[in-house]
Amino acid sequence: VSAPVVTLLSDYGLDDPFVGVCHGVIVTICPAARVIDISHGVARQDVRMGAQMLAGSLPFMPVGVHVAVVDPEVGARRRAVALETGDGRRLVGPDNGLLMRAAERCGGIVEAVEIAGSPFRLEPVSATFHGRDIFAPVAAHLAAGAALADAGMPQDPRQLVVLDLPEPRREDGALVVQAVLVDRFGNVQLNAGHEALGGASLKLGQRVRLSCADCEREAIYARTFVDVPAGEALLYEDADRRLAVAVSQGNAAAELHLAAGDELRIAPA
Amino acid sequence: VSAPVVTLLSDYGLDDPFVGVCHGVIVTICPAARVIDISHGVARQDVRMGAQMLAGSLPFMPVGVHVAVVDPEVGARRRAVALETGDGRRLVGPDNGLLMRAAERCGGIVEAVEIAGSPFRLEPVSATFHGRDIFAPVAAHLAAGAALADAGMPQDPRQLVVLDLPEPRREDGALVVQAVLVDRFGNVQLNAGHEALGGASLKLGQRVRLSCADCEREAIYARTFVDVPAGEALLYEDADRRLAVAVSQGNAAAELHLAAGDELRIAPA
Amino acid sequence: VSAPVVTLLSDYGLDDPFVGVCHGVIVTICPAARVIDISHGVARQDVRMGAQMLAGSLPFMPVGVHVAVVDPEVGARRRAVALETGDGRRLVGPDNGLLMRAAERCGGIVEAVEIAGSPFRLEPVSATFHGRDIFAPVAAHLAAGAALADAGMPQDPRQLVVLDLPEPRREDGALVVQAVLVDRFGNVQLNAGHEALGGASLKLGQRVRLSCADCEREAIYARTFVDVPAGEALLYEDADRRLAVAVSQGNAAAELHLAAGDELRIAPA
Repeated sequence: VSAPVVTLLSDYGLDDPFVGVCHGVIVTICPAARVIDISHGVARQDVRMGAQMLAGSLPFMPVGVHVAVVDPEVGARRRAVALETGDGRRLVGPDNGLLMRAAERCGGIVEAVEIAGSPFRLEPVSATFHGRDIFAPVAAHLAAGAALADAGMPQDPRQLVVLDLPEPRREDGALVVQAVLVDRFGNVQLNAGHEALGGASLKLGQRVRLSCADCEREAIYARTFVDVPAGEALLYEDADRRLAVAVSQGNAAAELHLAAGDELRIAPA
Repeated sequence: VSAPVVTLLSDYGLDDPFVGVCHGVIVTICPAARVIDISHGVARQDVRMGAQMLAGSLPFMPVGVHVAVVDPEVGARRRAVALETGDGRRLVGPDNGLLMRAAERCGGIVEAVEIAGSPFRLEPVSATFHGRDIFAPVAAHLAAGAALADAGMPQDPRQLVVLDLPEPRREDGALVVQAVLVDRFGNVQLNAGHEALGGASLKLGQRVRLSCADCEREAIYARTFVDVPAGEALLYEDADRRLAVAVSQGNAAAELHLAAGDELRIAPA
Repeated sequence: VSAPVVTLLSDYGLDDPFVGVCHGVIVTICPAARVIDISHGVARQDVRMGAQMLAGSLPFMPVGVHVAVVDPEVGARRRAVALETGDGRRLVGPDNGLLMRAAERCGGIVEAVEIAGSPFRLEPVSATFHGRDIFAPVAAHLAAGAALADAGMPQDPRQLVVLDLPEPRREDGALVVQAVLVDRFGNVQLNAGHEALGGASLKLGQRVRLSCADCEREAIYARTFVDVPAGEALLYEDADRRLAVAVSQGNAAAELHLAAGDELRIAPA
């Protein structure tokens, strides 16, 4: 039988020992666990970015216990939760919307418990590091075989915080979208799939006009980077099957002055 | 039975293959080992920062073999050591004080060996990468079951290098402390616990005046970030149970121009 | 018996979830695998840097499946390959030269297959993330026991792309070398071993003159950093047994304005 899997995603970064300490806590409680770091590079306290990353990554993770910590309200009264999804995953984190999009993609929430007062907590619980004191130990006990119901108090899933994620919209013949994720290469993922472009109207190789607060640029609708000349911008479907903007052998985020959260208008050229 | 644990802490960073190579060496020698990276983000050659991180993190690690490498004198005549602590951990690293604070917290040193000439070394030993050639292989052999005595020559623990760590002091009614660690969020850990504030004299919600070479600012003595308005500085007990300075939703290190090693004066407002 | 080992090296960085997703894919397919990250800090699309890092690191890795992804032409017609080397390693990556220097050091290529159309691919294969969709799943199936021949179509090893790596040369009594790798400390590895210095003619402690496009500096030929005064430049044999340039307690790359790919001339002082 396989080792139980615990995945971690956070805005902790890797310079400080926060992630290492969470690993230590998990392995101390559940020595058999395999711990996979999805990413700790979520921008500081950016719950939306964390939610998108988690939702995009979980389908590639073995079914297990999945911890996410992007938690601007740590130490305040926000709930902490553990959820079970339709496909058998357990998700653990703050109740600020971070887990909800991933839960949706994994079959929805079938059970939830509030874990701020979990019997699995490390005492004394600090006011600032619930990753170590609540989320990691709860996840480790779940990985070691504990039932979700033993991790905390029953919680009505319908009362959990839902993230307000912007939807793409049509305006004067243009598609208005939002930048969602910027990766290391400066590629910018948008909050839309290619169906939002209006089906058959836009063909590979055609040009579009991109406009944002601080940019105005033509791009080619293409399959991928190598299909356009170096230095050209392109609009393409990325590996998450979302629309994205890149510059071939360049950095789209820098050249178009685009950051997560910015609005971008896509119109026929 | 659980896999033997080896933890790693260093100033190697993660851009270069140094850490990966140490993992490879350990797993080659001890295929059963579980390797946990505490952090490789110690500032270059900052032995004090490494010592503080190691001491703060080890209590959350399973009992195992704990390697630390922050080693400005690699290639010189400084000793390399492996220690056994009162609680059964084995610590491995350069003899420059890096391991001593952690060893104290883990029950003190019960046995020590000098490992510069260890039979477990990888030959030829380079002049610059003792993490790969001495510390990782010695740790791996210990994890695989070797006795400490087999790793090197007996070493009197009282002759090991001790780090000179500054103590907080009182001066004209103020508490003078030193910044010890700055984390990714700009939170600044100080070299004092909250008992240093003088017991009952300071209450949650009261104001203090912070002064350093390049700053002058009021802060609220608070439980945590969310208990003060955004943009306000706070003095609080952090997750290591040490006093720390933060700015709610801001970056204290940047705003107060504080770096590790800087002195800070805390006085009633 | 030991767990099968899969190592990863890439230019993905650690901020995005690319590396975590590859881990998830591997563990989903081969739950027994141990995954070791050699480094994900290769400079973006720098195939030469990746090739050097891989070749320098593999000798310290257990024999296993070794994935490397630095892949400027992802999505174009470049081949994807899996190789078996003389010492029993399997190497997986794009056919752009990235794997070739490591393969040479590991006993040469004894078998190769083209894997762009591998039955082990994740469908649908994206145009941009072959690490997730081709290289990780192929590696995981190999780690789980699949034969190389089952991973793709037979490929003549002599037709694989070879990197053009510059060789050191002699010019007017000087040795002209190229900077190959710059590490976190600013130490600069050169494309030559110490035998290139001309055997007995240069002795430890002697001075040499370093010249590059933007620098002119004396350095001491030394065993290691601590053998020269702080602030002095040195030429030494590094841990990979290659010639390298450092500044004791300084940053050679910054002070000499040296980056990977730059030419450097070493002459007697």
